[in-house]
Amino acid sequence: MSVLEQIKEKVDQATNILILTHENPDGDAVGSSLGFMNALKKIGKKVTVLIPEINNMYSFLPGFDEIKHEIDTPEEFDLCIALDSADIERLHICKPYFEKIEHTVVIDHHITNQNFGDVNYVNAIASSTCQNLIVVLAAMDIAISKEMAECIYTGILTDTGGFRYNTQSETFEFAAMLLETGIDIAKIYRLVFDTTTEKRTRLLSRALDRLEILEEGKVAFTYITKQDEEDLQAEDGDHENIVNYGRNIEGVEVSIFAREKGEGKYKLSLRANEYVDVSQIAAKYAGGGHLRAAGLEMNMPIEQVKQTIVDEIKKQLK
Amino acid sequence: MSVLEQIKEKVDQATNILILTHENPDGDAVGSSLGFMNALKKIGKKVTVLIPEINNMYSFLPGFDEIKHEIDTPEEFDLCIALDSADIERLHICKPYFEKIEHTVVIDHHITNQNFGDVNYVNAIASSTCQNLIVVLAAMDIAISKEMAECIYTGILTDTGGFRYNTQSETFEFAAMLLETGIDIAKIYRLVFDTTTEKRTRLLSRALDRLEILEEGKVAFTYITKQDEEDLQAEDGDHENIVNYGRNIEGVEVSIFAREKGEGKYKLSLRANEYVDVSQIAAKYAGGGHLRAAGLEMNMPIEQVKQTIVDEIKKQLK
Repeated sequence: MSVLEQIKEKVDQATNILILTHENPDGDAVGSSLGFMNALKKIGKKVTVLIPEINNMYSFLPGFDEIKHEIDTPEEFDLCIALDSADIERLHICKPYFEKIEHTVVIDHHITNQNFGDVNYVNAIASSTCQNLIVVLAAMDIAISKEMAECIYTGILTDTGGFRYNTQSETFEFAAMLLETGIDIAKIYRLVFDTTTEKRTRLLSRALDRLEILEEGKVAFTYITKQDEEDLQAEDGDHENIVNYGRNIEGVEVSIFAREKGEGKYKLSLRANEYVDVSQIAAKYAGGGHLRAAGLEMNMPIEQVKQTIVDEIKKQLK
Repeated sequence: MSVLEQIKEKVDQATNILILTHENPDGDAVGSSLGFMNALKKIGKKVTVLIPEINNMYSFLPGFDEIKHEIDTPEEFDLCIALDSADIERLHICKPYFEKIEHTVVIDHHITNQNFGDVNYVNAIASSTCQNLIVVLAAMDIAISKEMAECIYTGILTDTGGFRYNTQSETFEFAAMLLETGIDIAKIYRLVFDTTTEKRTRLLSRALDRLEILEEGKVAFTYITKQDEEDLQAEDGDHENIVNYGRNIEGVEVSIFAREKGEGKYKLSLRANEYVDVSQIAAKYAGGGHLRAAGLEMNMPIEQVKQTIVDEIKKQLK
C-alpha cells in the first residue's frame, strides 16, 4: 500500500482526530492545520486542532476560532496528525499528546524530517506542507472547498514569500486550481504581507533615521537600542524586516542590522545580495546561518560593533 | 481566419518588423516588447524595438541592450506591432511610425482598447499583455525559450503586483509553464520589487518621522516638503510607495500622504482599506481617482491641510 493509501486508511479508521503543528506556527503550519481540519470535518470526522500559542494574523482563516489552546483528555483521540514538523521536538509542549495517541500520521515538506509517525508523507521538493496536503486530499478523494483553499493558499503564499522562492511549476499549477474555488487572493495577500502595526512602523522609522551607507555604497548599517524597544513597547519580531531596507538599496552588497539585547550587547543580522559569504563572518564570531543570511553577537559599544563588522565585510568586497 | 491566424499571416509575410509600446513603459510593456522581439528573431525576422525613454530597472531582460531609442528610416519596416497600448495616442512620439507602416498588429489587454491596428488581439480578461503574448506565440508555433520566458514572466509579475491582483487561474498556469524553461524567478522578483535607492529610502525615513496616527488609529497622515526633495535630490516617483506605509498599519482605514509641490501647495494621495470612499472626497476638491485610491490638491499650510482632509474623512469613519 502506498503512503497515501495508508494515510487514507488511517483516517478512514479514525473517529476522533487531533491535529498538531510546530511551535511559533507560521502560515504554512496554521494553513495546513485548518485546511486539513476543514477537510476531515467534511467527511464526518471529529477533529481538534491544538495550538497552544498562535499569532492573530491568521484569524481570517476559516476555522481559526475553533483552534484549541489546551485540551484535557488526549486519551479520547484515536489518530494524531503532525503537520509541517520535521521532528517530534518541534511539537514542543504538544509532544506528549503525539506520543500517547495510538495511531499517528506525519505530513511535511522539510528535507530533515525524521519520519516520526506510523505513516509519513514527506515530499521535500514541495514549497510547503500545504502543497503536500493537496496531494493527500486528492488521494483521499476530498474535493477542495473554498474554505480549505483559503487555508491552503495562505500556507503556500507564506512559505514561498509570495511565489518568490521555493516555488515549483506544480506550486503555480496548484495555485491555479485553488483560485478556481473563488478565493480572494488579493485579500489574503494584504492580510498576510501588507499588514503591520504602528509599533513596527515607528521602530523602522528609528532604524532608518540611523541608516548609514558605507564603503562606496556597498554596505548598509543601522541599529536599534533597547531604549527604542522600551519606548515603543516593541514586541518580539517587530524588528524582523528592518535589515532588508538596507539590502534592497541599489548597489548595496551587505546590509547589517544590529539590535541591542543588553548594555553593550548586540545581536547582528547580516544579509548579502550577490557574492559576500556572510556565514563565514558569522562563524568567526560564533554565530551561524546561511551564505547570504547570517547572524552573530558582539559585546562592545555600537561604534565599535560597526567598525569591527565593516572591517570583516571589507575583506570580501569587490 | 481567426485573429490569431491573421497575426501569424501578417508576421509570416513581414521581413522587417518594428515593435512599439506605450510611453513610460512598465514591466508589461518592456517585457512583451522584448519577449516578442526574441521570439520573432528566432524565426528569422529582422526586429527593432523602439522605446525613446526607458527605465534602467529592466536592463536585466534579454535583449534590453538592443532597444533603439530613435530610428532614422521607418519606411524600411513592413510590419508594426503595438503592444500594451489601448490607443494610438499611448504610443506618444512613436505614433507617426505606426501610422506610416503599411501593416499593423495590436496586442493588448486593456478593456478600453480602440482596436487601432489592422489586426487586433485584445483579451481584456488577461492579467497582462505578456499573458496574451503567450497565446499568440502558441498560435504561431513558437516554443517559448528561457530568454522569452524571462521577459514574459516579468510582465506578468509586474502587472499582477506579484500575483496579488488581476490574476486568473490561467495566469498561474502560464507561470508554471514559464518556470519550466528554467528562469530564476527569485532573481526577477528581487530586481523588480525589492530594489530601491538610497534617495527613496531617505525620503521614506523623513515621511515616517512625521507619521501621525489620528482618529483613534483609523487615519494615518504624513507629508514631505519641497525642501526634503531638494535635500535628497529626489527624482520623479521617489515618493510613490510612501502612502502605503500608513495604509498597511493595523486599524488604519485611510492613509493620507501630502507632497509639497510649491509654497503652501500640496498634492494629496488618499488610500482607503475597507469602506471609506476617497474618490468622493477627492471629487469635492476637484481631484479624482477610484473608490479606495484617489488624489487631490490643496493650497494652504500643512497643518490646515491635515485638519481639512481629516475633517472630511471623519464624516465617513465608522
